[in-house]
Amino acid sequence: MEQLSINHISKRFGRQLVLDDVSFTLAPAKIYGLLGRNGAGKSTLLNIITNRIFPTSGTVKLGDLDTNNNDDALGKMFLMGEANLYPKRTSIRRTFDLANEAYGQFNYQTAARQLQEFGLDDQQHVNDLSTGQRTIAKLVLALNVDADYILMDEPVLGLDATHRDLFYKELLKSYQAKPRTFVLSPHLIEEVAQLVEHVVIIDQHKVIADDQVQHLLDLAHTVSGPAKLVDEYTAGLRVLASENLGNIKTAYLLDDLDDQRVIPDQVKLGHYDLQHLFIYLTSGGEHNND
Amino acid sequence: MEQLSINHISKRFGRQLVLDDVSFTLAPAKIYGLLGRNGAGKSTLLNIITNRIFPTSGTVKLGDLDTNNNDDALGKMFLMGEANLYPKRTSIRRTFDLANEAYGQFNYQTAARQLQEFGLDDQQHVNDLSTGQRTIAKLVLALNVDADYILMDEPVLGLDATHRDLFYKELLKSYQAKPRTFVLSPHLIEEVAQLVEHVVIIDQHKVIADDQVQHLLDLAHTVSGPAKLVDEYTAGLRVLASENLGNIKTAYLLDDLDDQRVIPDQVKLGHYDLQHLFIYLTSGGEHNND
Repeated sequence: MEQLSINHISKRFGRQLVLDDVSFTLAPAKIYGLLGRNGAGKSTLLNIITNRIFPTSGTVKLGDLDTNNNDDALGKMFLMGEANLYPKRTSIRRTFDLANEAYGQFNYQTAARQLQEFGLDDQQHVNDLSTGQRTIAKLVLALNVDADYILMDEPVLGLDATHRDLFYKELLKSYQAKPRTFVLSPHLIEEVAQLVEHVVIIDQHKVIADDQVQHLLDLAHTVSGPAKLVDEYTAGLRVLASENLGNIKTAYLLDDLDDQRVIPDQVKLGHYDLQHLFIYLTSGGEHNND
Repeated sequence: MEQLSINHISKRFGRQLVLDDVSFTLAPAKIYGLLGRNGAGKSTLLNIITNRIFPTSGTVKLGDLDTNNNDDALGKMFLMGEANLYPKRTSIRRTFDLANEAYGQFNYQTAARQLQEFGLDDQQHVNDLSTGQRTIAKLVLALNVDADYILMDEPVLGLDATHRDLFYKELLKSYQAKPRTFVLSPHLIEEVAQLVEHVVIIDQHKVIADDQVQHLLDLAHTVSGPAKLVDEYTAGLRVLASENLGNIKTAYLLDDLDDQRVIPDQVKLGHYDLQHLFIYLTSGGEHNND
């Protein structure tokens, strides 16, 4: 399997710049999170990668080959998108058959088991389903298509907690049975933090982070205590946000701690999670309660 | 304001029973959660309450009056639903005007402020919006309609964490400015646990719980320790689920603890949250890992 590279992609819709010089690389057989706020441009980017819409500039390459109108390359990528492109009376089973015709080797056996566990029947029509059920039908399709790069836009839209959990387990099972690349673009970041090895974060239409999840979490420190001591301790470090409660200040860092600095007794160190890291990185300072 | 009562509502679609003798009451000026798994019948119920579809049997009454085709009663209820009923080129502003014509007294000023905080423009067309943006447009509409009962089906569908948080704050602000009844039907239960005073839980098409959130949480105890001691201690109490890890068992109760029973030293008591309570109540035993 070859790597998929997104090179300097920009996209304008009329006067609006939706993606601004976006570059990153997806490696084979790895689970990614593509994170961004509502309106950041994630769906547009996923549609560009899979050649459903065209960038204003930039290229997408699989290995050395430009994927633009290259059927071989596009046959290795599958997008589970927002749009429902099926005609009115299309059954779930028919969507599997269409994927089998386009990609070959559709895994009907696993798909049947998964549909049953999620409580759906393959004769149901896609357009008769509720929001959550439609998501399930799309997930089961995406998990069983034979492609090296599976892109899932809002994979748990409208799913209840038990079904979300079942999806995370089935994704891991599917990955273990046949390692390939998944790109998940969810809004429930904390729930996927365990699944995802690497995240690309988009904010204001640009890539603002492209890193291993574990590395980001290692840098995500809290420092709390009397405001003056916290300020002294964190001087020169990257503070994303802070909160004051009376005289007690908590600073949220994204940085290595300095082993040289003495930590005063009244100052406590801790960690915070990926969801908060995302919020502090992307909120444009609105969470800084100073 | 009068109370809204749902009396013995059943609904069949063909051979499928979607709601089975559902009864509960909504009091004025209170925030409710209507919880259920995917496919439990929540959306159907909300559509029946607001007279968009008709029950197979049962009635909905506002005070003593049957709401069926009663324009006065229906003018006091607003449903923010899944369906997008607007024609193709409808702007957000136009949806406000339509609500103002139907219900009167639309709060344009607050709606304008909220749209700005969520980053939308009232000239945007509803059909051009992404999933998350469409939810925002619907939320702002629902929060500013002049109605005593506001029903919100999947209120945070596709919203990022910061926008979800903003919605919860705006809902409380709106409620405080003008107390009225909200019914939220979300899948992110833990996030609304603080907002919601009372929950109605639907499972397998029936009401399985109808209670104050605080009362349910008071009953939600964990008991952990050596399996034999946990079993002795919980005998006769309502155990929803249990987990074993080696010889250590954790039982999830929904019951008062018995003050008469001696708690052995090795047994620890604790609490669990509304999300887990919901999962254990509705999973049909699949979380019992015994």
